[in-house]
Parts: sequence; C-alpha cells; structure tokens
Amino acid sequence: MDRFDAISPLDYRYGTGKEIAEYLSENARVKYQARVEAALAKALAKNGICSRKIAKQIADAAAKVKAEDVYAEERKIKHDVRALANMIRKRVSKEAKPFVHFSSTSYDIVDTASAIRYKEATEKLVLPKLKELEKTLIKIALRNKKVVQIGRTHGQHASPITFGFALSEYVSRLGNRIKSIEWAKDNLCGKFSGAVGSYNASSLLVKNPQKLERDIMEDLGLKISTHSTQIVEPESLQDLIHTLIGAFSVLANLADDMRNLQRSEIAEVGEYFGSKQVGSSTMPQKRNPINFENVKSLWKEFMPRMSTIYMDAISEHQRDLTNSASVRFIPEIFVGLITSVERMDKVMGKMVVDRENIERNFDLFKEIVVAEPLYILLAKYGHSDAHESVRKLALQSYKTGEGVYDLAQEDKKLIKFLKMFTKKEKELIQNPEKYIGLSVRKTEQVCKYWKKELK
Amino acid sequence: MDRFDAISPLDYRYGTGKEIAEYLSENARVKYQARVEAALAKALAKNGICSRKIAKQIADAAAKVKAEDVYAEERKIKHDVRALANMIRKRVSKEAKPFVHFSSTSYDIVDTASAIRYKEATEKLVLPKLKELEKTLIKIALRNKKVVQIGRTHGQHASPITFGFALSEYVSRLGNRIKSIEWAKDNLCGKFSGAVGSYNASSLLVKNPQKLERDIMEDLGLKISTHSTQIVEPESLQDLIHTLIGAFSVLANLADDMRNLQRSEIAEVGEYFGSKQVGSSTMPQKRNPINFENVKSLWKEFMPRMSTIYMDAISEHQRDLTNSASVRFIPEIFVGLITSVERMDKVMGKMVVDRENIERNFDLFKEIVVAEPLYILLAKYGHSDAHESVRKLALQSYKTGEGVYDLAQEDKKLIKFLKMFTKKEKELIQNPEKYIGLSVRKTEQVCKYWKKELK
Amino acid sequence: MDRFDAISPLDYRYGTGKEIAEYLSENARVKYQARVEAALAKALAKNGICSRKIAKQIADAAAKVKAEDVYAEERKIKHDVRALANMIRKRVSKEAKPFVHFSSTSYDIVDTASAIRYKEATEKLVLPKLKELEKTLIKIALRNKKVVQIGRTHGQHASPITFGFALSEYVSRLGNRIKSIEWAKDNLCGKFSGAVGSYNASSLLVKNPQKLERDIMEDLGLKISTHSTQIVEPESLQDLIHTLIGAFSVLANLADDMRNLQRSEIAEVGEYFGSKQVGSSTMPQKRNPINFENVKSLWKEFMPRMSTIYMDAISEHQRDLTNSASVRFIPEIFVGLITSVERMDKVMGKMVVDRENIERNFDLFKEIVVAEPLYILLAKYGHSDAHESVRKLALQSYKTGEGVYDLAQEDKKLIKFLKMFTKKEKELIQNPEKYIGLSVRKTEQVCKYWKKELK
Amino acid sequence: MDRFDAISPLDYRYGTGKEIAEYLSENARVKYQARVEAALAKALAKNGICSRKIAKQIADAAAKVKAEDVYAEERKIKHDVRALANMIRKRVSKEAKPFVHFSSTSYDIVDTASAIRYKEATEKLVLPKLKELEKTLIKIALRNKKVVQIGRTHGQHASPITFGFALSEYVSRLGNRIKSIEWAKDNLCGKFSGAVGSYNASSLLVKNPQKLERDIMEDLGLKISTHSTQIVEPESLQDLIHTLIGAFSVLANLADDMRNLQRSEIAEVGEYFGSKQVGSSTMPQKRNPINFENVKSLWKEFMPRMSTIYMDAISEHQRDLTNSASVRFIPEIFVGLITSVERMDKVMGKMVVDRENIERNFDLFKEIVVAEPLYILLAKYGHSDAHESVRKLALQSYKTGEGVYDLAQEDKKLIKFLKMFTKKEKELIQNPEKYIGLSVRKTEQVCKYWKKELK
Repeated sequence: MDRFDAISPLDYRYGTGKEIAEYLSENARVKYQARVEAALAKALAKNGICSRKIAKQIADAAAKVKAEDVYAEERKIKHDVRALANMIRKRVSKEAKPFVHFSSTSYDIVDTASAIRYKEATEKLVLPKLKELEKTLIKIALRNKKVVQIGRTHGQHASPITFGFALSEYVSRLGNRIKSIEWAKDNLCGKFSGAVGSYNASSLLVKNPQKLERDIMEDLGLKISTHSTQIVEPESLQDLIHTLIGAFSVLANLADDMRNLQRSEIAEVGEYFGSKQVGSSTMPQKRNPINFENVKSLWKEFMPRMSTIYMDAISEHQRDLTNSASVRFIPEIFVGLITSVERMDKVMGKMVVDRENIERNFDLFKEIVVAEPLYILLAKYGHSDAHESVRKLALQSYKTGEGVYDLAQEDKKLIKFLKMFTKKEKELIQNPEKYIGLSVRKTEQVCKYWKKELK
Repeated sequence: MDRFDAISPLDYRYGTGKEIAEYLSENARVKYQARVEAALAKALAKNGICSRKIAKQIADAAAKVKAEDVYAEERKIKHDVRALANMIRKRVSKEAKPFVHFSSTSYDIVDTASAIRYKEATEKLVLPKLKELEKTLIKIALRNKKVVQIGRTHGQHASPITFGFALSEYVSRLGNRIKSIEWAKDNLCGKFSGAVGSYNASSLLVKNPQKLERDIMEDLGLKISTHSTQIVEPESLQDLIHTLIGAFSVLANLADDMRNLQRSEIAEVGEYFGSKQVGSSTMPQKRNPINFENVKSLWKEFMPRMSTIYMDAISEHQRDLTNSASVRFIPEIFVGLITSVERMDKVMGKMVVDRENIERNFDLFKEIVVAEPLYILLAKYGHSDAHESVRKLALQSYKTGEGVYDLAQEDKKLIKFLKMFTKKEKELIQNPEKYIGLSVRKTEQVCKYWKKELK
Repeated sequence: MDRFDAISPLDYRYGTGKEIAEYLSENARVKYQARVEAALAKALAKNGICSRKIAKQIADAAAKVKAEDVYAEERKIKHDVRALANMIRKRVSKEAKPFVHFSSTSYDIVDTASAIRYKEATEKLVLPKLKELEKTLIKIALRNKKVVQIGRTHGQHASPITFGFALSEYVSRLGNRIKSIEWAKDNLCGKFSGAVGSYNASSLLVKNPQKLERDIMEDLGLKISTHSTQIVEPESLQDLIHTLIGAFSVLANLADDMRNLQRSEIAEVGEYFGSKQVGSSTMPQKRNPINFENVKSLWKEFMPRMSTIYMDAISEHQRDLTNSASVRFIPEIFVGLITSVERMDKVMGKMVVDRENIERNFDLFKEIVVAEPLYILLAKYGHSDAHESVRKLALQSYKTGEGVYDLAQEDKKLIKFLKMFTKKEKELIQNPEKYIGLSVRKTEQVCKYWKKELK
Repeated sequence: MDRFDAISPLDYRYGTGKEIAEYLSENARVKYQARVEAALAKALAKNGICSRKIAKQIADAAAKVKAEDVYAEERKIKHDVRALANMIRKRVSKEAKPFVHFSSTSYDIVDTASAIRYKEATEKLVLPKLKELEKTLIKIALRNKKVVQIGRTHGQHASPITFGFALSEYVSRLGNRIKSIEWAKDNLCGKFSGAVGSYNASSLLVKNPQKLERDIMEDLGLKISTHSTQIVEPESLQDLIHTLIGAFSVLANLADDMRNLQRSEIAEVGEYFGSKQVGSSTMPQKRNPINFENVKSLWKEFMPRMSTIYMDAISEHQRDLTNSASVRFIPEIFVGLITSVERMDKVMGKMVVDRENIERNFDLFKEIVVAEPLYILLAKYGHSDAHESVRKLALQSYKTGEGVYDLAQEDKKLIKFLKMFTKKEKELIQNPEKYIGLSVRKTEQVCKYWKKELK
C-alpha cells in the first residue's frame, strides 16, 4: 500500500510511527485478540479442560497469526473472529483444534482484547506523553513564576498575575486529567461470559464458569464488570474516552491561549521558527502559530466523536451490532490525542517567551488596572460605596488619560480614606506590578503538588 | 407569565413541579448565589475582617433577595452579580455595606453557587430518583429471575437466558452510573481566589487568603480545585455531566429494549394502558410505548449537549465569557434526566410482562437454538471441527424444518460423539429452556451486589 | 407561573417577548394545530364531505381553543392531539362533531402545523431580523470601506485591507445564509395522508384523497413532500435548521472577530458601554465584550443540537415516536438564533470603531508587511527565486528592526530588479497603506450585490 | 506501508479501492492542487503575464508532481503548499520559475483544489452510487407494490400498506437527497483573491484581478463566492456535507427498518446469507443483519462530524488555521458514505423478501386493525362519537379475542350505522387487506417521479 493512497490523515500524516502501530493499528488489534485466545487456552488448561501442552500449542500458534491471514480467511467465511480462530486452528494439532476459542463467543475475545489494548496504549503511550508535557509545563511555569503579566478576562486587561501562574492553570488541569485517565484505564473490563452473558457454553464445561473468567482476566490484568451480555458494559470505556477528550480540551485551551499571546499586537510568546521554515507561500514575513492551530484543529475533529461513544452505549437486548464499524474508529481518538500531546510538548518546550513585550503590555493600562485594589482598600477603610466611586474614576481616566489613583487623589471625598492607607498599600497602588496576590506562591504550590502526585 | 407562553418544553410540560424549581430554576440560581454571599460574610467575620453582627446582617439580607429584584437592578447596571450585591447592600446598614461581596469577583460567587446547587440537586433529586428506579429494576429482575426468555443478539434469537437476567444488565449499569454520579458530585469545587485566580484582592485583607477560601468552602461543603482562574476548573462539573449523560444513555437503552419487546409480533412486555387512554387519534386500537419513546427522545435532545460542555471547557486566559449563556442551560440537562428517570420508574413499575408470549417466542426456534450447546458438547468430546459441522446442520434445519439435534442424530459422523453425552447433557439439548447457564445465579448476584452498594 | 421559576434561560431571560411567543411558545403550537383543523374542515366542505356551515362552526371553534384547555383534557385521555380534537368537538353542534379531525391522524395535524408555524416564524421573525442586521453590516462596511486596516491571518499581521472589506465578509456570508433560509422555508411540507401515509382513511371518503390534501396545503401555503408516512419526510425541516445553524455560525464568527479586535492591546473596536454600566463586580475599570461573548455562547449551546435533528431523521417503519419530546425543543433553536441576531444588530449598530488604533496597529509592522508586494514585483521583473530572497530579508528585518525594503535596497543582487519598478510600484512599496488591492471596490460590490438580492 | 499498520478502518478495511483513492486519498489531494497550479499558469498566459510556452511547461511539470516528493520537501521547509510550488519549480526552466504559484496564496490553491476535488468525487463516486441504490430501491418497491403488509407505527401494527409503499418512502427521501447533493456540489466555490481576499498581489500584475480569478475557475468548472478572505466562504462546502449526512441518515433509517423486519419473530426480510458464511463464532445457527448494522454503525461514526464542519466555519479575521488538520478528515466523510451506499445497494439487491411471513404477520391482528376504517365509516354515517365507541370495542377485543367488527355487530347502538355501509365498505371491513388506500398508486407515482427526476 502506498502511504499516500491512504484516506485518513492519521495514516499518511499524523499518526505514523512504529510505536503507535504497535498498539493502535489493525495489526495490533489482531495481535491483542490472539493474545486473548492464548489466555483462554491457558485458563482452559488451568481448569482442567485441556492439557497444558495443548494450551501451549494454541498460545504459540496465536502468537504467529497475522492480520493479513485473518483477512484472507474472513473473505471466505465473512466472520472476522471465526477467521482468527480458524487461523489458529490451522496451526495446531488435531487434538488441540477443539480447544481453540473453546466456549467463547466472538465478543469475549473482541471486547477483552480491546480493553487490554486500550489499557496498554494508555499506559505506554498516552500517559507517558502526557506526563512529559506536564513536566515541560511545570518547568516553564516555575521558570516564569515571577514574570509579572497582566491577567486577562474577556480579552481585557484585568488584574496582575505572573506568566508562571497563568501556566500553572494548565499544570493543574492537565494533572487532574492525567489522574482521571489513570483511574479510568484501571477500570477497563474484560468478559468471558459467552454469547448472551449468562455463561451458557462455559457452564457445559466447568462447574464455576466465573472462575474461568477470573483466571483469564487475572492473566491479562483486567477487571470484570458486574454484569455483561454478549459485550462488556460500555461505561468503563466510555469513561476512559471521556477523560481523553477532557485532556484534549485542556490542550485545546492551552493552544488557544498561546495563539492569542502570539498575536502580532501582543507578541508575548512565539512558536519557535526554523531558519529555513516558510510561514506563507505568498507573505515571506509570516510566522504563524501553526502547531497551536493544529492542536486546536485536531480537538475539533475528535471532540464530537464523544457523541458516537454515547450512541454506541445503546445496544439492543443482549447486543446488536450497530457498533461494528464505529468501535473500529476508537483507536483514532487515541492517536489524535497522542499526536497532539507530542506536538504540544515539542512546541511548548521550544516556545519563545518575550519578557519585554510582557512588560510592555503590562504597562499599557497599569494606571487603570489599579482600580480594583483602590476600590478594595477604600472599602476596607470604610467607604460605603467604593466600587461605584472608583468605577466613575475609571470612566474619567478613560476619557482624560490620567491615572485612576491620580484622579482619586484629586477627589475630595476620597482623600480621607486614601490617607488611611498604609505605606505598603500605597506602594502597591502606585506599583501595580506588585499587586499579584499569591501568584508566585500558588505557582509553586501547584507545581509541587502535581510533581508529587504524578511521580 | 402564562405557563403556555413558555418556549421550552421543560417549562410548560416536562420539568414542572416545585421540587425541581427549588434547585434548578432561576429563582434557585439567585438563592444559591445569595447563600454564597452569606457564607462569604461569615468567613469575613471569622477572619476578623468584619464583625459577626455585620455578617449576620448580610446573611439575613441575602436570604431575602429575590430573582425579581436582581433582574430589576440588572436592567439598570447591566451586571447580574453586581445587581445581586446591590440588592443585599440595599438591605444592610451603612457600616455593613462595604463588606457585602467584599474582595470577591462575580465568579467566586457564580461558580461556587453553581457547584453547591448542582451538588444538592444531585443529592436531593437525581440520586434519590435514580435509586428508586434501581430498586424497581431489582424488584422486577428478581421477580423474573427464572422466567426463561430467548436471548437476542442482532435482533435474532441467540441463546437462552431469563428475563430477570436481561433486566439485571440495567441493574448493573445503572448502579455503576449511580456510583459514578456520587463520586462526581462529591468532587465539585468552589473557589474564592478573585478576579484572575491569584487572590489579589483578598491578599489586601488577610494574611492567608487561602484560609479564607477554605472557610467559605467548608461552610458550603465544597472542595477547592488545585488551581482556579476567574473561574473554577471546568473538569469537575464536566465529569458530573458526563456521568449524568452516561446514566441517561443507560435509560435510553432500557427504553429501546422495552420498546422492541413491545412490538406487536414480540409482545413480551407492554406499557400499562389506562382504560380511558387514547392510543391514536385515528386508530382506536393502538397501544403505543409512548413513555419509552419519550425517554429515548429526551436522550436524543440532551446527549449532544455534552459537546457544549466540552466547548465551554475552553476559556481564554484567565477566562473569557463565551460561556455566559451556555452554562445557564446546564440545569436543563438535570431536569431532562430527572423527568426521564421518574417516567421510567413509573412505567417500569407498572409494566405488564406477558410470560405466555415470552414462552411462545422462546419456542419458535428452540430446535435451532440448540446448535450452540450441541457444538460445544461435540467439541468437548473431541470432534475437531464441531462448529462447522453444526453450522451445516443448522443450514439444513432452516431448509427442512427438522430440529438440529434430530438432524445430528441422523448424521453418521456425529453419532459416536452424541453417544458420549451424559444424560444431563442430552436432556439439556432436548430441553433448551434448561440451557440458561448462570442466568438465575447471576441475576441474584447482581441484584444483591447493587442493593448493598447503594443502600 | 413565576417567570423566575422557569428552568430554561429562554423563558426567564433571553427569549421573552410577545412577538416570539406568538410563533414559538406552546400557546402558538396549539393555535397552529387548531388552524390546521380549521383548514381540514374547510377542505372537507370543499370536497363535499360536510357542509360549509359545519366547516365554519369547526373553524370558529378551533379559533377559540387554548393550550390550557387542551392540557386539561390531555391529563384525562393521555393523548394531546385527540385532546385538541375533543376541545373543538365540545364547541360544535352534534352534526358537526363527526367532521372534527375527520379522517386525519394526529401527525397530519402536528407536522403540518409545525411546517406552517416554522415557515411563518421564519418569515415574520428570523428573516426580518437577519435582514436588519444585514443592513446594519452594509452600512458599517460602506462607512469604513476606505479605512485601511492590517489584514490578519493566524492572528498575525498579513497584508493590508480596509475595515469595510473585513466587514463585507459578513455581509456576503450572512446574505448567502439569508437566501438559503428563504429557500429552505419555502420548501417546508405538510401532509394529509393519514396514519401510515397511504391515505387509507381519506380513501373511504373521497375519490381523490390527494386532492383533499392539496386543498388543505394550498389553503395553508405549504408544499407536499413526494411521499409521507405517518409523518412528513424529515429532510425539508432538517434543511431549514441547517441553514439556521449556518447563519448562527456566521454570527459566532463575527462575534469572535469583534471580540478579538476589542482586546486591550488591539482595541480597534469596542462595544458601546453605558455610563451606568458595570463591567466587573470587582474591577471597576472593566469594559467587556459581553454581547459578542453572549452570541458565541448561544452558538455553543445550539450548534450541537443539529445532531438531534439528524438523529430524529431516523424513525422506524411508518414512524416511531422517539422524536416525541425532542421535536418540542426545535422552537428553542429559532429563539436562540433570533435573540442572538437582535443582540448582534444592536451591538454592531452602536459599536465604536477606533480609527486611530486601527492606524496605530497598521503601522506596527508595515515595514515587514511589504514583503509580499516586494516578492511579487521582484518575480514580475524576472527574479527566479524572489520568495526565498525576501523571506531571508524578512528574517533579517525581524532581527535588526530595519525595514524589508530598506534591506532590499542594500542587497546587490536585488538592486537591478528594484530599478525596474515603476514609480507607482515604488510608491506602493514605500506606502503599504496603498497596497490594499481591490478592498474598496470589492466592499462596494459585495454591499451592492446583497442590497439588491435581499431587497 | 503495511496496510494493516493503518490506524483508520477506512484505510485497512472499508475505503480501500483504486477508484476511491483517485479522488479522496492524499495522492489525490496533491494531484488536484497541482492541477490548480496548472490552471493558474494557463490563466496567467491568457492574461498576458507569461507566455503560453511557460504555462505549458508549468502544467506539464505540475502533472508529474507526486505526494511523496512534496512531503520530502515539506519536511525541510515546513510548509506544504510552498513545497508543492518548489516541486513544480524544480521541473521548469529558470524563465518559468517566477510564474509558478505566481501571485497566489496557499489557500487559493488549497481551497480551490478541494472544491474541484469534492465536486468530482461527488460526480464520479457519490452520485452514481446513490443513483444505483435508488434504482435498486425503485425496482424492489415496484416489484412489491401490491404485497400487502401491515403498516407499523411505534412498532405496533397500525393500518395496512404494501411493502412496495414502505420502500417508496426511501425512494422518495433518497431521491430528494440526491437532488440536494447535486445542487450543493454545483455551488462549490473556488477563489483566487490572494492572502487576505482583496487581490493585493494580483493587482500588481493585472488590471482586472477578478477576471484572472474567473478565468481560472471557468477552466476548472467552479463558481466564485461573492466574497473570500484567505479562504473560500465555508458555507458552500458546509451545505454539501450537510446533504451527504442527510443522505447517510436516510440510509441509516432504511437499515434500521430492514434490521427490524429481520427480527426472528418478524422475519419479513433477510440479508442474503452465503452457504459458507459464519453467523457467529459460537452459535452456528445465527444469521445476522450485519450489513444493515454496519451501515447504521458508520452513520453513528460520521454524523457527529457535522459539528466539526460547523466549528470550522469560524475562522478569525482573514482566517486562522485552526482548521488545518480537521479539513483533512473531510474525505473520510465521503468514503464513509460511499462505502455504505455500495454496501446498502448490494445487500438490498440480494435481500430475501418472505411474503409468507409478511402475510402471517398481517393476519395476527387484522381483526383489531379494522378499528380505524370502522370508526371512519361510523362517523361518515353520522355517529357523533365514533372514535370513542370503537376505542371501547378495541379494548374489549383485546380482552376477549373477538374481532372488532364482530363486536360492533353485537352492539345495538352501532347496528343502525353499520346497516348504512355500502357493500364495498363492508367488504373492506371484513377484508382489511383491501384497506390499503393509495398504497399501490402512490408507490407507482413516487417511483415514476424519481425515475424521471434522476435520469
């Protein structure tokens, strides 16, 4: 197959790489299913249904099956999991044949294989990459913990913070999602309860079919849902995808923030730009936040897929198969997230922070920004309508260009209150870059907390 | 306001009732915000910023504020939370005025009030009603634990189960969602960190602004997120809504199952139908599963709103306000779910189960349904290609109408294996209604487990 | 009902007003259904089934029915449309009773009433308001057609345009959506084909039941879909909602653009701010783009509901009723859009455009922005690698602060090409505010075109 | 690349095939972009900017560029469209180099190439396949136009129709969507208005840049939107995707209907089942509607992506690039639909219709189903409360098993009306299979209409 004959950008552009294929490709899907077939054989042996030798034969055969073979067989018999079983059967002795896939329904294999696959993809790809990004964010946050920046709400200058504090928002939110992803992947469930969930077939073989199920799942490191039909209860995977989309949304928010800080007029940060890099095919001067844009864009592609997950939670009776195709797209969500996390880590790691511009922007309205502390202090010293008074000063300040504090000092009604201000308070009003509250302490707290939580 | 001048079906049709309004109406929104203002005043007193007397004055005034007044004030000043503060200020002494809303930003109040409101709506409405439904399902499951029913996959007869076992799927999945809702509502967070999250204003008043925040949240019974900007981190509420949508999806699935079992040709269950009830305005004989349909329909309305929640998780810098209107629709999701749970509980509680039809349907294909145990037993006794052999018998059975087991007995290659079957095994093949695996035991297990978990 | 006991923000906050209730409330729903019952009676008379007198009796009775009465009756018989019929029947003579609702199924009434209601709501509310906004946009675009502004791509300064040109984007896109809404509302279909769409009942009364259907629809001004079941084919309404969401998306984009132009550092436009208006409950100086934010927010609420519309397009066999509740929420989409259009019109009409800041921002990078015309002209005069050469100059310009054109003049390889530039070309390179292409002409074109198209 | 290392099921499973790759793969994307570059060169020559010889050189070079080369170049310069231009430049003479990509911005190429690509994919793949399916449906509808079937609403037996009439619903709805797709693809727009839409660069070269744009678009067969920025207005593509999702929803509905008719208890239709086909890996007897399920499943995957399309309609100022990745997934929607249409055509073409079961099911409740005509006729002959009377008979009929008409004949109050029935009316009441209204005529009408419309 020519890579550029692929339809999906995940296959020709974003999701390529051996590491990802190992967990999230169709080859991986088949490989994990074969692994469940092997685990079944071992459990059958453990429960006295077949010999250990036969179990080993089956496990060895399973390890050799390839997607290609399974697809060739499927073309004949129109059933993918039976095709897999046939490919294993083909490779074992006549004695072993009956024990391949024995007493299992397709979805005992499929759903269990998906659970273990997604669990391992989360452990080996999603979480390590997210933790790398978290580390990067912590590093930048701490490095900038004292860099005073204007806080912005509604895109308007609000109250002062530090750039490190701004980033610690993402340390915290991403940390929180990492924890929730860990929790969700540990709850993924497998099943071995047969065609309709009531252990009919396995009841013909063993006294305690639930023990057989437990043996398989212990081998694979999976939980068992309280109940299953032909399929595992959808909620545990639904929870995992929700947490992935949640983490993706945190990334999208960070990307938007950085894109906005990179606007020409703001220019507080900038994506690293290579010396050979072209920004525009017609405007040679352009330097665009293409990586931040890419992350936001992938979020827009993948976020709505949560609706598919919820729709797939509805399966009639002991299951319908109207999720046959849609569940095959779930690995795409993982890949979309992984590629975005990698990209974000790379671009944040190399991001240029322009402290001069941060300061320049801070200064733009600092004489007006003091309105908040002025109002608070006036109130503190007993002014009964401080907010309204200062609001009027601010209006005046917009018109005249004079600073709010200067105007206050000219206001006869306010003077008596202003006199009550302590020296430190006055200093703060006159130097709004000191009016940053707990920005530094909080940045440290957040970074310390999440460093510890995620170690 | 004329109720039928309302636009939203929640207001003229589905969500009406005092109980719901107490938590989820606009009156409730304002009431909860006033409660946070009161909690702030108390904490200010506790931290020595104002006297207890003043705090009491404020709390008393807050308890009297009505949505109507706040809206009137908002029309003048175009700011809803300042309007609330003004309405409280109006009712307190001049000395107390400065301490109303003191050092807080609007969203300290708004987000904290939402958290406590959604927490209590969950505790007082969502969870009790879900638990009622869970009890109803447990009762019906246990009552029908031995009622043999054909298991269905792909809408096709598959392997036997019991009707109680079928229902225990929903006991389990709903139980699981109830637990997750409980977990999520306990994680809801408030905040009191000011305009940009860095405690700038409160730092002017107290040495330890985080203590002031803790005092408020302890009073209200809320957690504090590791970090906040102008707003609480969106993830804790996002998690709660996800679990609500998850529970809604379980209901929708149950509704679909029951609707299908009520089809004229299947007719295993039926919604209770009143003697004066009209089924159709033109077909007087109709009895439609309108309640099950209604639940599915409300799910279709509310499920996609999860996308709004994810979009609202993106807020630029220390917050933008592009969630100003959308968050106001969140109570609708609660009401949509609550009304569906109530309806489902009522209709399940009165649902007619037609055991005769369950049996009639079971018998339709029972001679073919034995294909599975036959294949398993043939394999158990060493047939190396049992699945394929039985598949051919089934094909023949479809053509000739003869039972699969009868055909097997005529098959020379199979006879030697059939002879090895134990008496019990033969009996089971001849009486597929006995081939129900652990259906009964599992029903009991699941019901017992969730009864205990949710008590 | 206390307005503030409402759950939906459309009922207590956004969608209030008599005009909206007339088309989009529950009262309106019932009123339109009664109107269809009247149209039916008239058509029955026209086709000789009943007398004109009886038809008039029915029409008169229908005009008097109120939602309140219908709801009271529905509580007894559990069927809303039969309840409506009963309320009409109650008001007519015994002779007329059989002809009320005669030969119709509920959805002949419901779907036809919805079509005519949504058509009229579109004609009377949506389109006039959109056209008002379009006019406002045209006015501002033309007023600013020569106000040179830097064009921005990726949030970065790109090539010069005019502010009028920027706005003409929205004149064009909104104009286009207005046309598509007009087209879609004219395609709305009614039906009168009975319980399963095959005119069974009406075939008992008239020779040509399709003529009866045509008579009703002609009376109401509706089309008839090529086929119907119990319900009208969903696609015509689906198309209308799609065009509404499309228009909503144009508004959201405009809102985002304006919000960004209002950022403190950019400040090219500003929402009008009243002298008594409060911007923040803690930061008295704040002036936030709350109206633009509100529009974006409502878009986030309503856009995902398109998924509900697509899900509701699936109705089993001759219809299931799993859209019973969800279709009741469709009027909300209209109201969400209408309220946003009104708000946008108001805020755009009063928007402050700061031409000084537009010019100030333009000047920030104008020496680099000339990179594009420089590259084009170099290529025009035969430079075979002009883009790359200018890209390098731009890199240098970023470092040194020197203008790109100045650097070019110092570059020996470029001088011979620069000499070939005409006087006008040189002037343009030195005065990038002249490099605005067809901005003015295009603004005029677009405004003229849409003024004419929508008159 | 190993096909099974692909992530997307479209690449390893569903969307494979040369035909699809020709329009919808990454190779196709690059090929179409090169084609636009060639069209540009031709238009430049036509407008006297370069010689025809140079234009030919460029066109020839463009025809040779491969995705592979472009990707290699992109790795160096980080810009995909400039990489394409470079690959063409590499292949032309020094004289021609300046005219490659001359005066165009990347998105002049990208958006125009997408428009022509999606237009041709619609013309060459989507529409022909949809029309094939339409023909198949017409054939089956006509073949079954007289096969009496019970109409079903709410899954309940309602009034009689014919199976052909049931299918003509899909003939009509699919026909309607085909027309709307044709309309939408003809409205796709290209652009050649430069970096910010105001023709700045091309204004340096020609007097009438809009003529240059028109020449290019005429060559490619595309419209031009009234306005463009760096990008084409999103609405024309948005409309096309909407119509594709609309058609997809019709397929999903048809699939659901057929799945339900295939339920074991109903069994009116069945997917063709090969003699070697395996239905279940454990239940050898199973015959599942896997193709219908697959179509529904793909709909669940692709329908929510409409939200991505709406989100991508928002692009800040003269464009941001937060759709960079998401638009690359648009071809997937085409492929998802195409593969579903092909599958649906195949499975419908071979579908088994079991007329015996259709009749058997019809007979189940035919004695109750006559309630509708009975009520209509009673009313016709003057009974003033016919619906209620027959409703009570139906209740009795459910209890006693007696037919509704039989019960009516025993009812003293009704006898006088029954006597007024004509012979034909009585016959119809006693033979509800004749109570099919216009089912046959309407089936013919619908099929004839759409055959003509789509020829």
